[in-house]
This record gives sequence, structure tokens and C-alpha cells, in this order.
Amino acid sequence: MNARKQFRAPQGLKLKENAAGEKPLSSGDKVKDQARVADLAEQIAAYQDIFYAEHGRKLLVLLQGMDTSGKDGTVRGVFGKLDPLGVRSIAFRAPSIDEREHDFLWRVHAQVPAQGQTVIFNRSHYEDVLVPAVHGKIDAEECKRRYRHIREFERMLCETGTVMVKFFLHISKEEQQKRLQARLIEGDKHWKVDLGDLEERKYWDDYQRLYEKAIAETDSDEAPWYVIPADSKTHRNLAIAAIMVEVLQDMKLAYPPPNPDYFKIQVS
Amino acid sequence: MNARKQFRAPQGLKLKENAAGEKPLSSGDKVKDQARVADLAEQIAAYQDIFYAEHGRKLLVLLQGMDTSGKDGTVRGVFGKLDPLGVRSIAFRAPSIDEREHDFLWRVHAQVPAQGQTVIFNRSHYEDVLVPAVHGKIDAEECKRRYRHIREFERMLCETGTVMVKFFLHISKEEQQKRLQARLIEGDKHWKVDLGDLEERKYWDDYQRLYEKAIAETDSDEAPWYVIPADSKTHRNLAIAAIMVEVLQDMKLAYPPPNPDYFKIQVS
Repeated sequence: MNARKQFRAPQGLKLKENAAGEKPLSSGDKVKDQARVADLAEQIAAYQDIFYAEHGRKLLVLLQGMDTSGKDGTVRGVFGKLDPLGVRSIAFRAPSIDEREHDFLWRVHAQVPAQGQTVIFNRSHYEDVLVPAVHGKIDAEECKRRYRHIREFERMLCETGTVMVKFFLHISKEEQQKRLQARLIEGDKHWKVDLGDLEERKYWDDYQRLYEKAIAETDSDEAPWYVIPADSKTHRNLAIAAIMVEVLQDMKLAYPPPNPDYFKIQVS
Repeated sequence: MNARKQFRAPQGLKLKENAAGEKPLSSGDKVKDQARVADLAEQIAAYQDIFYAEHGRKLLVLLQGMDTSGKDGTVRGVFGKLDPLGVRSIAFRAPSIDEREHDFLWRVHAQVPAQGQTVIFNRSHYEDVLVPAVHGKIDAEECKRRYRHIREFERMLCETGTVMVKFFLHISKEEQQKRLQARLIEGDKHWKVDLGDLEERKYWDDYQRLYEKAIAETDSDEAPWYVIPADSKTHRNLAIAAIMVEVLQDMKLAYPPPNPDYFKIQVS
């Protein structure tokens, strides 16, 4: 199995509604799939421990997707077993006045991982192209310029030791309807409700087209995009966890070598 | 059982070497104690979920202790089950040039929790009194002034919605010797070795006296200090987890109430 190959955004990606429900990695048995996710999550945590000890490279995981696509659930399900010492999850929200008075990469750059750190971007700089573009605040030319800024920014990060993995959580419009409605039905979930999400839903098709464009403009071998079918929460976690394990395996992580001098020291 | 009462720093605290090995909460059976820690850690994670949903108060946990006293192990063992969405662990290291050109609370203030967030300080602003004081860089008067700054800073945080819990992990000099030596013997642990720790060890008694002073000067009912016997790792986690559960219980956390209007909305 090569999950990265399977989910890597193809050239000329078209986001199809029915693709959101695909489950190519599923065993057909949900309980088994969940156990597999738990196992992969443990593997990720074990690798992360070595990655932290190595204290050399940096790991940046970026999650994008429509509202309710499961970004929070991914943080919990795939990265929840990581040692809090080495992992940080950043939820970017609507930019503040101060943030808007800087370039759009300013607040993002401040949050990138240092050596040995794993950072998860729960939303990211991509919102700063998609949202204004959907609402006609920036034109096609400005979009193009921002994608170039993003490409060069991500390239710089990768050239300076960052391993970057970008996930687009692809849900169908129907699945979003169910999830939004479920939050409204259950009083205990009302704290998660943002009526703005219902507004944004009206721009569904525009967002889909803009995501295709965003992914096409910014996919690269150093900073690849993976398009994850996300109507099934278990399968979403399974696919993302499988990709993460492959990425970490490929990093050939190892504990730093011992220092021969240290063996001789007597602590008094 | 009231763990907070049991471990709250007494007035006129004297750090005794033999107290570091006490295990008042232990059942006498290590496996049972470990299971109890795991259970308490789950409870903390469950409370934290509501705390995050509540999105009102802020939670700041501060860990101090001599090198090898188990700050990292506490983060892992007690707080490792928390959802990365709502928790952040900050390891403060020797201040950078830029940081030194500000007041010592500047970099600390930047990292305090926002509403719904849990932040763990792995070392903290206390280092900025202890370390320079031990090395004669600041005098008793400057110490006193910094403790006043700390008191007022912490009080301000508490008055603006922060629940603060401060732990001093108390190990004996003998236990530190064992732990430092163990790192030197195992090549796989050499990456954790900082020869500076061996230097600092020479100032053991000075640090103990300064910690007594620091705790006396900054203990308060809003920002209390707990002195945790930490020669046993399991018991250390047990005591800290028990205190955290009590603190969270006392917060009377609850999911925000439902919004009656939301029940009527139909997502189309």
C-alpha cells in the first residue's frame, strides 16, 4: 500500500461530490478500521518521539477543508497521542485588525515549527486567499500573486528543514448538511455552532472551484497536497494516519548517536 | 482525600531531602498506582473537553523543579491525554538576547492561555529569579522586587479569568545523582544530557534555599504552590493528577447551554 500515491492531488484535480464518500483503505469493517487508526496513531507518536530527540528537522501538517469537514476530529484522532512536549496545534481564525495590517503570511510565519517540533495548522494561510476570493474582495490577479507568495514561502520552509504535509478534507455538500443539522439538533453541540457557517455554505460551488485552483497552484513535491475523502470520519483518519506514517518512515529518523565522552563521566 | 491540602506549600516551608521520597497517596502497589494515574489522566482530559467548550476561563499549570525532577515526564504522564486542540506546553529555555532586552515577564506574558486554553509552563518566570540569584547576578533586593512583580503579574492573571496551579517537583540530591548518571550510562539518552546540569548541581543547597524563598514569596490562594515529592515518578504523577482533578472539579465546569433558536434552523 502506498497511501501517499493514492491520495496525492492529481494534476488538474476536479473535486467530485461522490469522491468524498470513497473508502479505498477500508477493510469493510468499521471496528477493524478504528483499531487500525489507533495503531497508526501510536506509530506516529512513537516516530514523533525520535523526531523530537533528533532535534533537527521540523514537521508542519496543514489541514484545510470546508466547515465540519473534520479538522478538529483529525487533530484528536490522528495526532491525539503525540507528546504535548513536541506538538502544537494552531487554529487560525479570522484575522485581527493588527494581523490584517500585515501581509497575510505574517501571523502564519510566527507559528511555524522549530527544530524537533510538530505543528498542526488547523486552517492556514490558504483561508486568506479562499475567503476573500469567494466574497469578491480580491481579484484573480491578486489570487495568483498570493499563490506565488505561498509557493515561495512554503518552498523556503522546506529548504530550511521543514517537512510539510498538506491535507484537504473533502466532504460532500450533503454530508455537510447532515453535520450542520446534527449540531443544531443536539443542544450540547450548540457551542460549536457558528451561524456564519450556514452563510458560507451558500458559496459551496465557488469554494470547490477555488480549492481546485489553490491545490493546483501550490502542490509540489516538497509541499504536497493530499485530497482525503472525508465523509467517513474513520476512513478520513485512516487515510491521514497512513500517509503520516509513510512520511515519518521516509524521514529515516534515528536517536542522535551517543557521545563517547559521556560514558566516562561520574556524577558526584 | 484532599490532595491539595496534603501538598500545599506550608508557611515557612523547609525543603527536606527525605521528604522527596514520601509517597502518602500510594496504595503500596506500583501497578495499581499507575492504573490510578491513567484513570486520573483520563478524567483530566474529560474535564478539559468541557473547559474548552466553555470557552471562558483559562488554565495555567506551572512546573518547576531541579534538573531531572520530572517536568517532561509530568507533561507526558498527567497531561498526555489532553486534546491537542486545547493544550499547549511551553518549555522556557535560557532567554535570548531579544528576550533579555525586555523585562523578564515579557516572553512569559506572550504565552499565557487564552479563554478555553490550557497551557503548561515547563519552567517559567521563576527561573529568571532563581538562576541569576544563585550566580550572584542579582542581589536580595532585586530578588524581592522580582517576586513582587511575579505576585502582581500572577494576581492580574487570576483576576482576569486564569486558574493557576504551581507545582514544585521536589527530588533529593541523591535521586538527581542517579538520574543524571543513568542518562550518561545509556547512549540512547545522551541527547538529553546537558553538561550545564552537572555544573548547576554544585549549587544544590543554594537552589533549595532559594526555592523555599521563592515559594514563600509567591504562594497565594489564587496562585498556590504545591510541593510534590518526586523521587518516585509514579507517585509524582499520582499527586499532580489528583490535585488537577480536584482543581477541575471545583471549577464546576459545564457545557454552554443550548440556544433555543438553533433547534428551529433547517440547513438547506
